[in-house]
Amino acid sequence: MTWEEIAKAKKASVDDAIPSEWRLEKNPTANKVRNVGEYLDETLPARENSITSCTVTELAGKISRGELSAIEVTKAFCHRAALTHQLTTCCSEIFFERAYKKAEELDEYFKKNGKTVGPLHGVPISLKDQVNLEGIDSAIGYVSLVNKPKNKDEVSNIAKILENAGAVFYVKTTTPMAMMSGCTSSNIYGYTYNSYNRLLSSGGSSGGEGALIGARGSPLGFGTDIGGSIREPSCFHGLYGLRGCSNRLPYCNVTNSFAHAPVLASVIGPMAWDLDDLKLVTKLIIDSEPWMDDPKVPPIPWREVTDYPKKLCFAFVSDDGAARPHPPIERALQMCKDALVAQGHEVIDWEPPVSFIECRDLGASIYGADGYKEIADECAKSGEPIVREVMVLAGNGTDLPIGCSHVHEHWEQNKLRYEYQQKVDKYWKSTAQQTSTGRPVDAIITPLWETCSFKCEDIDMFSSAYSSTFNILDYAAVTTPVTTADKTLDSKDETYTPISDHDRAIHEYYDPELFHGTPVGLQVVTPRYEEERAIYLSGKLRDALSERR
Amino acid sequence: MTWEEIAKAKKASVDDAIPSEWRLEKNPTANKVRNVGEYLDETLPARENSITSCTVTELAGKISRGELSAIEVTKAFCHRAALTHQLTTCCSEIFFERAYKKAEELDEYFKKNGKTVGPLHGVPISLKDQVNLEGIDSAIGYVSLVNKPKNKDEVSNIAKILENAGAVFYVKTTTPMAMMSGCTSSNIYGYTYNSYNRLLSSGGSSGGEGALIGARGSPLGFGTDIGGSIREPSCFHGLYGLRGCSNRLPYCNVTNSFAHAPVLASVIGPMAWDLDDLKLVTKLIIDSEPWMDDPKVPPIPWREVTDYPKKLCFAFVSDDGAARPHPPIERALQMCKDALVAQGHEVIDWEPPVSFIECRDLGASIYGADGYKEIADECAKSGEPIVREVMVLAGNGTDLPIGCSHVHEHWEQNKLRYEYQQKVDKYWKSTAQQTSTGRPVDAIITPLWETCSFKCEDIDMFSSAYSSTFNILDYAAVTTPVTTADKTLDSKDETYTPISDHDRAIHEYYDPELFHGTPVGLQVVTPRYEEERAIYLSGKLRDALSERR
Repeated sequence: MTWEEIAKAKKASVDDAIPSEWRLEKNPTANKVRNVGEYLDETLPARENSITSCTVTELAGKISRGELSAIEVTKAFCHRAALTHQLTTCCSEIFFERAYKKAEELDEYFKKNGKTVGPLHGVPISLKDQVNLEGIDSAIGYVSLVNKPKNKDEVSNIAKILENAGAVFYVKTTTPMAMMSGCTSSNIYGYTYNSYNRLLSSGGSSGGEGALIGARGSPLGFGTDIGGSIREPSCFHGLYGLRGCSNRLPYCNVTNSFAHAPVLASVIGPMAWDLDDLKLVTKLIIDSEPWMDDPKVPPIPWREVTDYPKKLCFAFVSDDGAARPHPPIERALQMCKDALVAQGHEVIDWEPPVSFIECRDLGASIYGADGYKEIADECAKSGEPIVREVMVLAGNGTDLPIGCSHVHEHWEQNKLRYEYQQKVDKYWKSTAQQTSTGRPVDAIITPLWETCSFKCEDIDMFSSAYSSTFNILDYAAVTTPVTTADKTLDSKDETYTPISDHDRAIHEYYDPELFHGTPVGLQVVTPRYEEERAIYLSGKLRDALSERR
Repeated sequence: MTWEEIAKAKKASVDDAIPSEWRLEKNPTANKVRNVGEYLDETLPARENSITSCTVTELAGKISRGELSAIEVTKAFCHRAALTHQLTTCCSEIFFERAYKKAEELDEYFKKNGKTVGPLHGVPISLKDQVNLEGIDSAIGYVSLVNKPKNKDEVSNIAKILENAGAVFYVKTTTPMAMMSGCTSSNIYGYTYNSYNRLLSSGGSSGGEGALIGARGSPLGFGTDIGGSIREPSCFHGLYGLRGCSNRLPYCNVTNSFAHAPVLASVIGPMAWDLDDLKLVTKLIIDSEPWMDDPKVPPIPWREVTDYPKKLCFAFVSDDGAARPHPPIERALQMCKDALVAQGHEVIDWEPPVSFIECRDLGASIYGADGYKEIADECAKSGEPIVREVMVLAGNGTDLPIGCSHVHEHWEQNKLRYEYQQKVDKYWKSTAQQTSTGRPVDAIITPLWETCSFKCEDIDMFSSAYSSTFNILDYAAVTTPVTTADKTLDSKDETYTPISDHDRAIHEYYDPELFHGTPVGLQVVTPRYEEERAIYLSGKLRDALSERR
């Protein structure tokens, strides 16, 4: 078979896994149905809508009290996921029958024992394509990896932990080829669209998760992030997404690009509608002592945030120096400042000694340390071309970079990263001299991306300095939904003089009509290994915004 | 100046830093004075011997009660260090006047405030040459780095922590060129000899520390270990030495070879006569929260071992598959088994799924990933030749290996390491099925080296599979002194049939007369990040041996 035939057959097999009664006869255009969630709310039965609007905590509670069965919950999410997939192409694998079987087993267990198997008993959880499940591909956007199902010994540690807690798996979600793009695109599935705004990209690389959870086809899922891949789709879909520090959560047996590149690690983490759900699963995973089964995980137990000081100080970033954020994002920043100040907190500016651009550029050089040999080799196996969105990494898609000419250069990248970390850590501590709390700032709040998504074909316009900076620094970050773009509030600043061609291009890209209704999120960033604090302070921001409304 | 002139002048400047009244008129031959500690005990004043025979805890206690002054303690150790240096060449830097000044300041502080500055107030601590101090070289055995004193901003984090606790620094100690040898040798200082047996090597790369502490010219010092460099000199000198897991103790601002090589990290750790001292300083450093100032240190607080089960099970390694250990080491293994069994503990064999030889070979390929370009470049700066003991790395000193031809190969090394770690971790857990305690074995006890040192010129005979295996696995290990080689007890096994030429060469190398009186240590190994447990169980072994005597 040619690569085209393999890709086509794979895509068809996923679509065919949807029961015929759930197939859309006619797929409405993006102009007709922009917002998938709203559309589904209007068209699905009330009882299903009621189930799929529950948080993980609510679902688990209802199931544990016998108010809902695991099978009913599973079917409701499968239905909604099937429809979301048809409207966004968010699923890379669909296995509803297997999910029903698992849910029925759980219901039987509950009936027999009068108790649940764990805190996620019967709760559907979606997984990015990288997470290995027995008997299912982890093709991560490569034709060469299609029809190579994972075996029992390859199952991801994190999947085992979730399954032991009672989670029901039913879909895996799309990634760009090799996960190396902020736009989800592969030769197998094409583009994955934003479920809030089908004219725009779902982002990436956890774009399938973003689109699926964004339309509530899943209450919570897992993505990965080496340069923003959890956070970008989370922001683009109004979700909470955790980029924990390197290896705080176990990546063991998760299929990955450059899986053993030692300088900068991708991390795995949850994406969810609800912050308490995000905390629940993060704590659950850490409480399972994942370091017992993954040599890379440091043995840091969950440290509940208690007795945190009442008055807080947040440092804000308004611009990464590369591109001024679009008006909805600037409004979101102001909303956060106002809400926090209204609560008696303090806000200052974040002016680090290492720029966002320097961090982004170092990240790009580390990603490309092998000259993307692995991507080229993997594509060569099937004959498929490298997708344009991944080629962008090389600089406007003309050619792949050559990478390090010597191992020693790779070590120098590691040195530079360590220097950046030390400098910014020192600066963070020094902010104690600026705050009225006498402590360093409690968290940084920054845009995650300069826009609220983009048209899929425009990915090469963007850099990810806001996002990848915190991969280089290895700080913990939780995206926090703030608002949605509003054409009546977010007008273009016609007086602005851009600082560069890039800045001008981004500035001119703003189209109030196009972005209208798209979510706007920011990230709340805390120091290394302070995931607990990042989640806690994201909650403080959520509460402040909520009281302000 | 030629490199020879620079090296000679540097060596002379160190020797000249010894006050004339402490200079040996005639340096006795190794045949005449084999054991430096014994010789000094016989020749030094009783009061000095009394001081230098104290542990860190005893010294700190006496100083804190006003029974000893910091200056008297410092002078006693300086005197003993000066003599030990003349008999072994263990010091790379001598700065007694600076130490006296510091000690006098501490005494003044104590007099004025009636209290100490910290738990190490007035205690002399020695440092391997790598540890940066203001105004002093960290030449790490390179002529090119001579006369390049470190500035204030370059001072090692660990030195600051110790100094804040009241430690007095007075010497730095020799390393082989680039620290890349198990025998301490450089073009600046020549060989560093074993202070228990001047016919033999001090080991390496923390050979200067080993020789100095071995003769009690220091109560406690710091070495580093990427393949056995703390543990080998510790075993060769009857010391407790801790190889903690990667970055448990802060390496920040410690001069290093391949400082930013990301796959396998060198670690810094204490070496001491007394295990309680080892625990004291390790806890002190961790309690200082070193992760606040070193991005590489995971925030794992000191976790005191309490309520540890009474009945223990230890797994023993008698042979690494490359070379049978010499008779004194085999006797030490048997002594430990007998002593532990006498205490009611259990002993089983350690039979891991990844061999010591596989781990050693992977280590060697990782060390050489850059083809030792850095060493060649650094030597080229001064024109000095690479010392033979470092050339040995390349395989019998004929040429340097070529390293990785592509960054991707380096990543493959990282992958293999991770696989080895997972396999051995899994095996460790599976030992629960073999023990009568129902738990996996509590620790492994293994030789650290196949011999009790060697003649300096013979380093190329040895591999370090016993030691470097635990760098690859990143387990915690504490060397534990067991006995000394005894020609009357440790006779050669004339019936043994070696399994290889290498095994034969090692077997034939045993000379009861040559090794007589040399210390024999073993290592107590615990899982990753279990430094507290490794120290605790080393104590259990120490106590069991002590009760058996």
